[in-house]
Amino acid sequence: MGESPEKKEAAEKQQPEVNIEMEQTATEEASVPLSSEEPAKKEASSTTKCRVVGVLGSFKWLSLCGDAPLITEKMDHAVEESKTRVRRAFSYLLHFLDITGRNFGQICFANNPISGFLILAGLAVGNLTVAICGLIASTVGILFSMLMKQPCSSIRAGLCCYNAALFGAVLPALLLGPNPVAEEVEVFIAVLIGSVFTVMITVSVANSLSSLKPAIPLFTLPFNLVALFAILVLRVHQPLQLPAKVPPPEFDWTHLVEGSFLGAGQVFAVQDLYCSGLVLFGLLICSPVLAVAGFFGSVVGTFLGAAVSPNLWNDAYAGVLGYNAFLASCAVCFFYVPTWRSALVALLNAALTLFVQVALGWAFADSGLPVLTLPFVAASLIVLGMTAEKQALPRAEAPLTFPEQHRAKWLQEARRDSIESTDTNTHPTHP
Amino acid sequence: MGESPEKKEAAEKQQPEVNIEMEQTATEEASVPLSSEEPAKKEASSTTKCRVVGVLGSFKWLSLCGDAPLITEKMDHAVEESKTRVRRAFSYLLHFLDITGRNFGQICFANNPISGFLILAGLAVGNLTVAICGLIASTVGILFSMLMKQPCSSIRAGLCCYNAALFGAVLPALLLGPNPVAEEVEVFIAVLIGSVFTVMITVSVANSLSSLKPAIPLFTLPFNLVALFAILVLRVHQPLQLPAKVPPPEFDWTHLVEGSFLGAGQVFAVQDLYCSGLVLFGLLICSPVLAVAGFFGSVVGTFLGAAVSPNLWNDAYAGVLGYNAFLASCAVCFFYVPTWRSALVALLNAALTLFVQVALGWAFADSGLPVLTLPFVAASLIVLGMTAEKQALPRAEAPLTFPEQHRAKWLQEARRDSIESTDTNTHPTHP
Amino acid sequence: MGESPEKKEAAEKQQPEVNIEMEQTATEEASVPLSSEEPAKKEASSTTKCRVVGVLGSFKWLSLCGDAPLITEKMDHAVEESKTRVRRAFSYLLHFLDITGRNFGQICFANNPISGFLILAGLAVGNLTVAICGLIASTVGILFSMLMKQPCSSIRAGLCCYNAALFGAVLPALLLGPNPVAEEVEVFIAVLIGSVFTVMITVSVANSLSSLKPAIPLFTLPFNLVALFAILVLRVHQPLQLPAKVPPPEFDWTHLVEGSFLGAGQVFAVQDLYCSGLVLFGLLICSPVLAVAGFFGSVVGTFLGAAVSPNLWNDAYAGVLGYNAFLASCAVCFFYVPTWRSALVALLNAALTLFVQVALGWAFADSGLPVLTLPFVAASLIVLGMTAEKQALPRAEAPLTFPEQHRAKWLQEARRDSIESTDTNTHPTHP
Repeated sequence: MGESPEKKEAAEKQQPEVNIEMEQTATEEASVPLSSEEPAKKEASSTTKCRVVGVLGSFKWLSLCGDAPLITEKMDHAVEESKTRVRRAFSYLLHFLDITGRNFGQICFANNPISGFLILAGLAVGNLTVAICGLIASTVGILFSMLMKQPCSSIRAGLCCYNAALFGAVLPALLLGPNPVAEEVEVFIAVLIGSVFTVMITVSVANSLSSLKPAIPLFTLPFNLVALFAILVLRVHQPLQLPAKVPPPEFDWTHLVEGSFLGAGQVFAVQDLYCSGLVLFGLLICSPVLAVAGFFGSVVGTFLGAAVSPNLWNDAYAGVLGYNAFLASCAVCFFYVPTWRSALVALLNAALTLFVQVALGWAFADSGLPVLTLPFVAASLIVLGMTAEKQALPRAEAPLTFPEQHRAKWLQEARRDSIESTDTNTHPTHP
Repeated sequence: MGESPEKKEAAEKQQPEVNIEMEQTATEEASVPLSSEEPAKKEASSTTKCRVVGVLGSFKWLSLCGDAPLITEKMDHAVEESKTRVRRAFSYLLHFLDITGRNFGQICFANNPISGFLILAGLAVGNLTVAICGLIASTVGILFSMLMKQPCSSIRAGLCCYNAALFGAVLPALLLGPNPVAEEVEVFIAVLIGSVFTVMITVSVANSLSSLKPAIPLFTLPFNLVALFAILVLRVHQPLQLPAKVPPPEFDWTHLVEGSFLGAGQVFAVQDLYCSGLVLFGLLICSPVLAVAGFFGSVVGTFLGAAVSPNLWNDAYAGVLGYNAFLASCAVCFFYVPTWRSALVALLNAALTLFVQVALGWAFADSGLPVLTLPFVAASLIVLGMTAEKQALPRAEAPLTFPEQHRAKWLQEARRDSIESTDTNTHPTHP
Repeated sequence: MGESPEKKEAAEKQQPEVNIEMEQTATEEASVPLSSEEPAKKEASSTTKCRVVGVLGSFKWLSLCGDAPLITEKMDHAVEESKTRVRRAFSYLLHFLDITGRNFGQICFANNPISGFLILAGLAVGNLTVAICGLIASTVGILFSMLMKQPCSSIRAGLCCYNAALFGAVLPALLLGPNPVAEEVEVFIAVLIGSVFTVMITVSVANSLSSLKPAIPLFTLPFNLVALFAILVLRVHQPLQLPAKVPPPEFDWTHLVEGSFLGAGQVFAVQDLYCSGLVLFGLLICSPVLAVAGFFGSVVGTFLGAAVSPNLWNDAYAGVLGYNAFLASCAVCFFYVPTWRSALVALLNAALTLFVQVALGWAFADSGLPVLTLPFVAASLIVLGMTAEKQALPRAEAPLTFPEQHRAKWLQEARRDSIESTDTNTHPTHP
C-alpha cells in the first residue's frame, strides 16, 4: 500500500539500471553540493553520512532491512554479469521473485522482498488458496504492467502490482470461505481479469492523485474498487447471503487482546494467529516503527470498537475491527516523518478509520457487501492532506524508503537548515 | 463556511502579528507600486483609496462591519501592550472570544465576531443545548488546531474551526429533538470526538481542493462527513426511527413567506423566528449583500420546492427547503464579485441546490439519514468552478473580506487596467 | 462527449474570428519555426505537411470529413461578408445550425456538424419526441452559454452544450417510453431547466478536471448527474415502477450480433436499427477509426455481458449492454493516439465498462434508477489517467481534431524527434 507519487517520480528520474552501492547515500551526496557551497558544511554533513553508512556497513546483514538496499544492488548486477543464457534466465527469475516479494510487502508499506515472502508464508499457513491466488494475481499484474511499459523503477519497487496481489489474495478469502458464495472457477477467472484492471486503475489513479498538493498516495483504492465490482458482478448469478445475526458474546479482555493481534492477518482476510505473527515479523524486519505503529493502530481500533457497542464484540474478537486501523496507523507513520505529533495523528487516524468502518459497515449491511479496506483508504486519503506551520508535521520527502531513514534524513536536513540560517544571520549582507 | 484557500494562502504570507491599522488598505498600498510605475496612475488610485478610507474613517463604528478590521487591530495590540500577567490572560481570553465569534460567523461567510455572537445568541434563544454544544465544539476545535500548529491567521479568521462549531450545534439539534434518538451522554461524547475529526478533515480537504484551478473552497463538507458518520455510528445501538408520513397540509402563502424567513435559522437546525432574525441581522452587520443574497436564496428554495410537489409543503413551511438555498446563494455572492451575472448565478445555484436537496432527500429517505447541508455543498462545489471570458464572471481575489469590498477592489482594478491599456495603445512602441 | 480541456485551452488562444483556410495546417506551420531552426529540417517537415494538405486539397469534399475544416472556414467568412441585415441574420442562423450539429456529434466525439445531423436524423427516425427535445435542450444550452459569455471557440466546437443535447434526448426517451412514468409537461419543463444546469456543470467540471495531469476530459458526467437528479425529483410525485422480471430468453447468436449493432443507437436510449446505422454512418464520415472502435467496443460489451450470466441476455439483445462499451472504446481511441497498445486499452476499457455496468445495474436495481452512461464515464475517467514510458501510450496533443490526424501528427513529431536526436548525437558539443 505504499504507492507514493513522489517516490515514483523521484525513482523515474534515476537511471533504472544504475549501479550504486546505496541509492539513498548516493542521492544525499549528489544533493549536498547543490545546497551547501562551503567545505565546512559539506564536511559536517558527510560526517553524518559516514556514520550512517558505517553503522549499516559494519553490520552487512542490516542492508537486508529497511528497503533492502543489498538485494536491490545484487539485482542490478545480476542481469549484467550473467554471461550464459541459463544464468541470464536465472537472474530474470530472481528479479521476478524480488518484485513478487515487494508486491506483498508494499501492501503494508514495506518495500522489502523478505517482508513480502514472510507475509506470503503467513498467508499460506492460514489459507493456501489465498496465497496461490495472490501469487497468480501478482504475476499477471507484473506481466501486464511490463506489456504496458510502466516505469521500470515503479514495477521493481512493487508499486504497480501490490493492489493486484491484495486483490488476488482477498477475493477467494471472501468468496470461498466456509460458506462459499461463488464457484471456484468463477473466482479464478475473476482473479485473472480483475488483476489486469487493478493494475490499470493503480497506474491511472496514482497519476491523477499526484497532481494534488501535498501529493496524496492512493493506498489500496484500486483493490477496493475492483473487489467491490467483482463481488457485485458475481452476484448476478446468486446473491450473497447475509450472515445470520449472532447475539453479542460475553465481554473478555483476553479475546480483545487476541483480536488486536489478529488484525495484522485480517489485512489479507486471514484470521490466523501464525499469519498475524508472520506479517508483524515481516514488518519488523523492514521497519520496527511500522510494526509498532500497526500493532497500536490495531489495538486502538479493536478497543474503541468494543467501546462503541456490544454488537461489535464478535468483530472485535475476530480482528475485523483492527485491520483497517492497523493500516491507517502505518500509513501516517510511513508518509509523515515520525515525531510525537505524527504519532498522535496516527492514533487519531486509527480512531477515525474505526468510526468510518462502523458507519460504512452499517450502511453496507443491507446490501451484504464487505467494507474491505475502504475505511482505511477513505480516512487516510483525507488525513494525509494535513499540513502544519514550520515543519510541525513534516511529510517524508522523496525518495521514500522506510520511517527510520525518513526521520534520519529529516533531522539531518533540519540541522543543515539551522546551520545555514545561523550563517545568514552572521553575514546579513549576503542575500 | 467561508473557507477559501486563496484567503488562507494570502493570510499566511502576512506576518501574523503585524500591527497595521487597516489590513486591506495596507495591502492595497503595498500592491500599488508594483503594478503602476507612473506617478499619475498612483495618484489616481490613491485618490480612490483615500475616499474609501475616508468614508470608513469618518464613521469609526463602520470598522466593526465587514470583517471587523477595528477588532482585528485591537486584538493585535492587546497581547503586546498588556504588561501584567492578569492583563495578558485577559487579552488571551479576548482573542479566544474573537475567534469563537468568527467561527460562528464563518458558517455564513461572515468573518466578523459580532455577527458570530448574534448568531450564537439566536441559537441560545431557539435551543440552549445547541448553543452550548456549539460553543464546546468550537473550543475543542480551537485547542486542537493550536496543538497541531495550524497557521495562526487561519485560526484567527475562524477558518479552521467553523465546521466544528456547526457540527457541535447541529448534532444535538438533530438527535436530541422532541423525539430524541440518542442519549445525551452519547451525543456529548460524539460532539467532543467529532469536533477533533472535523478540524482534521477541514485542514486536509482545504489543502487538496486548493490545488484545483480555479481554487474551490470546501464549504461545510467536513461537517457533513463527520455528522453523517456520527449518526451512523450512534445508530449501531438503536436505529433512527423514520418520521411518520404526514399528509400534505393546505397551501398557504403566508406560511411560505414565513418558511423563507425560517431558512436562516434552519442552517443551524433551529426552527425559530427570533433565531432567524438574529442570524440575518448578524449577516447584515457584516455585509448587506450577504444578508439579501441569503434571504432571496431562501425564497427561491422555498417557493420552487413548493412548486415541485405538495408533498414538500410541510418542509417548505418549516424552512427546511430554504436553508441550503440560503447558503448556496450566499456562497456565490461571496466568492464571485457581485455583478448582475453573479446574481443570476446565485439564484441558479439556489435553484440547483433545491433540486439536489429534493433528489437527495428522496434517495436518503429509506435510510432515515438527514441531508444536512450536503445539497448546498455539492451544488456549490460544482458551480464555483464556473468561469467566463474577459471578466464576465470574475472570482473575488485574495485576500477575501466581504462582498462590498470585493466589488470595490474589482472596480478599481478594472479602472486601472483600462488606464493601462489606453497608455499602451497610445505608446505602441512599448511592448 | 469530446470535452477536452486541452482542446479548449488551445482553442481559446486562437483568435476566434481569424480567417485561415485550414486551422490545423496553420497551427503546424506556426509551430515549425519554433522547434526547428535549420532549413533542412523545416523542409523535411513541410514536405510531410504538403503531402497531407495535398491529399485533402485534391479531394475538396474530404474537408467535410474529420472536424469539417471546410465548414469552419465558410462560417468564419459568413458573418463578415454578409452586407445586408437579412444576410447577416441568415449567416447567424447558419452558425447556429453548425453549433447544433456539432453538439450532437460531440456526444460520440465527432466534432462534425454533418455527423451530428445524421445522428439527429437517426433520433427522429427512431423517436420524434426524442429528437425534438434534444434540439430544444441544445438550443437552450447555446443561448445560456452565450449569456454566460463562455469562450466562443468552445461553444462553436459544441463542447459547451453536447451534454445538454444528450440530456434533452435521453430524458423523454427514458420517462415517456411505452409505459410513461411522468407527464409530458413535467418532462418538458425538466428538459428546459435541466439543460441550463447541464451547461453550468459542464463548464465548471471541465475547469476542475483540467487541472489534473494528464488532463482528464469530463465525458458525459454532467448529463448523468442532471438526469439522475431530474428522475429523482420527478419521482417525488410518483415512484418509478420497477420493471417486471422477465425470464431469460433462449440463446441466439444472431440476436447478439443485432444487439451489438443496436448499441450505437442506445447511446441516445433509442432502440432502432436505422438509428444505429445513421449514428455509425455519421461517425464514419467524421472518422472511420471512431466508427470501427465504437462498433468493436459494442461487440465486446454485448458478448462479454452475455457470457457473464443468462440474466443479462435480454439486455444484450436490446443493445443495452453495448452502448457504454461503445462510448468507452471511442473515448480511448479519441484521446490516445491510435496504436496497437491504445487499441488494446480501448478493448480493455470496453470490458471494464461492461463489468461496471453490470455491477452498477445490480446496485441500482432496488432503487429503479437507470445507469445511463455512468459506467462509461466512471471507467473512462479512470483509464484515461494511464501513462507509460517513452511514448508507449501517447495522449493525443491539443488541438484535438480526429484520431486519424492525431496519429499523423504524432508520427510526424516522432520523426522530427528522431532527426533531432540524431543531430544531437553527431554534434555532441552542442548542449
